[in-house]
Amino acid sequence: MDKAIGVGLLGLGTVGSGVAEVLATRTHSLAEQIGLPLTLKKALVRDPSKRRQTRISGDLLTTRPDEVLSHPEVNIVIELIGGEQPAKEYIEQAIASGKHVVTANKELMAKYGHELLSLAGRHNACLRYEASVGSGIPLISSFQHDLAANRIAAIQAILNGTTNYILTRMAQEGRDFASTLKQAQELGYAEADPANDIEGIDASYKLVILSNLAFGARFVPQDVHCEGISNIAAPDFKYALEFGYAIKLLAIARRHDNKVEMRVHPVFVPQNSQLAKIDGVYNAVEVETDLAGTLLFCGEGAGALRASSAVVADVLAIARNIRCNATDIPALRLDPRVTVKPMSDLRTRYYLRLNAPDRPGVLSHISGVLGDNSISISSVIQREINPEARTAVIVIMTYPAIEKAMQKALQELRQLPAVNEVSNFIRVEES
Amino acid sequence: MDKAIGVGLLGLGTVGSGVAEVLATRTHSLAEQIGLPLTLKKALVRDPSKRRQTRISGDLLTTRPDEVLSHPEVNIVIELIGGEQPAKEYIEQAIASGKHVVTANKELMAKYGHELLSLAGRHNACLRYEASVGSGIPLISSFQHDLAANRIAAIQAILNGTTNYILTRMAQEGRDFASTLKQAQELGYAEADPANDIEGIDASYKLVILSNLAFGARFVPQDVHCEGISNIAAPDFKYALEFGYAIKLLAIARRHDNKVEMRVHPVFVPQNSQLAKIDGVYNAVEVETDLAGTLLFCGEGAGALRASSAVVADVLAIARNIRCNATDIPALRLDPRVTVKPMSDLRTRYYLRLNAPDRPGVLSHISGVLGDNSISISSVIQREINPEARTAVIVIMTYPAIEKAMQKALQELRQLPAVNEVSNFIRVEES
Repeated sequence: MDKAIGVGLLGLGTVGSGVAEVLATRTHSLAEQIGLPLTLKKALVRDPSKRRQTRISGDLLTTRPDEVLSHPEVNIVIELIGGEQPAKEYIEQAIASGKHVVTANKELMAKYGHELLSLAGRHNACLRYEASVGSGIPLISSFQHDLAANRIAAIQAILNGTTNYILTRMAQEGRDFASTLKQAQELGYAEADPANDIEGIDASYKLVILSNLAFGARFVPQDVHCEGISNIAAPDFKYALEFGYAIKLLAIARRHDNKVEMRVHPVFVPQNSQLAKIDGVYNAVEVETDLAGTLLFCGEGAGALRASSAVVADVLAIARNIRCNATDIPALRLDPRVTVKPMSDLRTRYYLRLNAPDRPGVLSHISGVLGDNSISISSVIQREINPEARTAVIVIMTYPAIEKAMQKALQELRQLPAVNEVSNFIRVEES
Repeated sequence: MDKAIGVGLLGLGTVGSGVAEVLATRTHSLAEQIGLPLTLKKALVRDPSKRRQTRISGDLLTTRPDEVLSHPEVNIVIELIGGEQPAKEYIEQAIASGKHVVTANKELMAKYGHELLSLAGRHNACLRYEASVGSGIPLISSFQHDLAANRIAAIQAILNGTTNYILTRMAQEGRDFASTLKQAQELGYAEADPANDIEGIDASYKLVILSNLAFGARFVPQDVHCEGISNIAAPDFKYALEFGYAIKLLAIARRHDNKVEMRVHPVFVPQNSQLAKIDGVYNAVEVETDLAGTLLFCGEGAGALRASSAVVADVLAIARNIRCNATDIPALRLDPRVTVKPMSDLRTRYYLRLNAPDRPGVLSHISGVLGDNSISISSVIQREINPEARTAVIVIMTYPAIEKAMQKALQELRQLPAVNEVSNFIRVEES
């Protein structure tokens, strides 16, 4: 082995540039922590002639993946391309060539985490992915090491900064979804194509990664019931407030014996709960454990610097292992009994907002449908009568009910002459 | 080496029993994670005949420290006696006998951390102490590993559950300090001799431990300016609320170039800040970093189960190292330039509550003293005139001022005929 630890970068976008910058500017402090220098040997880029803000020598740039993946002096390959392919192929090739790998790729780890970790294990290679969830918030390492003695009961988390930013602005300013999204895009808090964020897909990737660690599961993104925030409208915030709740896009995994609820959707959370108070682009992960109690981890979940903190920490951990000739590969804790609890079995409270004709007997018809489906009403607000259209808004909070029954009731309500529209329904979490 | 990893316990009190219980009941899951069984070989107790709730064989109990410290099959010694001696002597003896050590002893790590870590380093032994700060909240490992690439600017933390519980009850119920403390003692949230907690000593130990990791410092408890909460009275909460603040006992370490503020005292924190919302027995640590941004770690900071989560995580980390013949001892990062910033140089805003005679010109005298010391007033509340005693309460919020000047002004105010009493003064943190 060379007297330095060699690093190869795949991708020199926002996060890649951040990592290159940290490696270049903290040489001394990083070397001191490992006991050996840490050197960037090669970086794969699409266009070497592109002007970059990062101080990086042109000699280090290449457009040929092999020059990183098979570089004899590269010990650690950092994958920051994102997406499925060619990222997956590159990681496999790096592992097969005897490299350790650090990745920030949540999609890959959610879809193929078990396969890639098994491959790494067979090659005695480390595959670390701290930056894939919550950027610089230490989550993966906390689950792998610090909580290793615990049985984990539940994860409730805000895992997507874009949606939390949009919901926060909507709540604070009473604005509608479309204009808030547009503003978030202008400010760079939402991407031009925001579907991955606002539909909850990004959050569901991250929930899969955390749940697999927490429960020893082999979940994939399809195991998550996933709904986005585009249906949330200004009145929902008003009623949430009135009932004592905030609206958040939560990622929830909760174990019941050997079945785990896996869901991402908008949620009414009690105003005095910690998650209700997480505003703007912040991420927060609440973990319920049997020994350590309920822990909350919170920080900004996005940004080049945030991710580079996690990526470089992973690199340092591997480098320390290389330095002392150890491969501390956390055992893949697999509990084959663990399966997904079907969404239809969920039991929770529901908030319903309906538009109905303003005439006598309407509420009786609506509550009849709910009652027929064994759903009890906890409170009703009927207000906002529109005298011209002769319609009224009816808001209902139910007692805990079964999702399957609620879905059936929603179908029936949509058919009911006493209901013009089911404007929204949102699940309610009690803390 | 034996085919099992042997553990020796020093102390079988609340935390010790919790640890013994976890080792006894999670045998399979722990062994699976290490790849070898983990076995309790011996436990040092004062009275072996005492009835215990923990399932532990009488054969494992001993009153002779050597039977743990020199036990040939003990690889890891867990020190849970607490206090300085004999804990320190035992740890030194364990390290000298080639054992790794896990401790939850905050006093020892704050006073002699550097000495003990150096000793361990020289013997190629691991000394881990995750449970010493924040119990089950992963703090030590986060500073050592996850934040290793960061420059840390500041730590602001609620590190003592007892005082946070008392302040929370006082704020919510408008009660006075003495009766709230008494109630906390009855409920088991405060000890019979509460001085260590309520005077801020416990929090200052923990601040020293975190600061030494964060800044590469060699601070000791005497480096911390430490004030407790016993002066806080019901009216202070009322005025705090009026100005938009909560009152918390904060532990603060903030770096300015190579000087670090180190202080534990009651603080006005903005109501909308995250630390203001941490109530009851919860602990919370906010870390300002350059790469990862501002992170918040939160959880219950006390209790046998909470601490055992951290202790067993430390044991597992060492056991994995033993298993793969590695000693991953985090380098002692020492930055010899780092020193303590004297408290007298602190610059912050202040809240003052004064009792003054109810006559004209009083405010002019008071503001004159402050002005002479270059302290500007931001707002004044004069209210609560007691017509019989002919006294008034004057509450002042200053602009940022220097501590030395404020202390001089306080001296002068106490001498002033226009002031009956300086009832309280509390420093203010802006977020």
